[in-house]
Amino acid sequence: MEKRSDQLPRRFHALGDPTRLAIVERLAAGPASVSTLAAPAAMALPAFLKHLAVLERTGIISSSKIGRVRTCRLEPQALADLDAWLSDRRRLWAQRLERLAGLVDDDPDRKRE
Amino acid sequence: MEKRSDQLPRRFHALGDPTRLAIVERLAAGPASVSTLAAPAAMALPAFLKHLAVLERTGIISSSKIGRVRTCRLEPQALADLDAWLSDRRRLWAQRLERLAGLVDDDPDRKRE
Repeated sequence: MEKRSDQLPRRFHALGDPTRLAIVERLAAGPASVSTLAAPAAMALPAFLKHLAVLERTGIISSSKIGRVRTCRLEPQALADLDAWLSDRRRLWAQRLERLAGLVDDDPDRKRE
Repeated sequence: MEKRSDQLPRRFHALGDPTRLAIVERLAAGPASVSTLAAPAAMALPAFLKHLAVLERTGIISSSKIGRVRTCRLEPQALADLDAWLSDRRRLWAQRLERLAGLVDDDPDRKRE
């Protein structure tokens, strides 16, 4: 299996959780510290850190530490890759519908009606 | 939590698996029978049917049975919803960058340089 296909399901899986989606929604507005991100989540910090680790491992977010504060930021290219895959599938599906519509238009039986 | 947010992580989760991604890729080319879809998957049919059920439960695919043949098809609106969420997050992120660039341009300290 090619590398792209390998990373793709892991990234979709990373977004397949309400806590992790909420983190991405917050980071779309700008970088935030781990404690800021953790505040609205109704869970213990170790569980929350595991969610952050899943997002970071798949390249959806990155983080850096200055002093005692770790700041997370969104990596939009990872979202763009998912976006591109979804758009491609939808385009293929629409092209097939157009081809079918073309076949119906060319159908001599239909023209006789 | 609103309905949209509830369905969204379940749909991302449904795509977070190589077998299920391969099913969606195949169905983007057109409807297919369960046996056609199962043929390339290296797993027993009951395990494969569970993957199909995950996709159907989240509205990413639908299926209908004629005689003994069950045919699956892609439901592109479900993919469009995910696509829209990803695009919105990326747009927010880009807008923030633009605002930051604007602030830097307006900085009087910077103009004096």
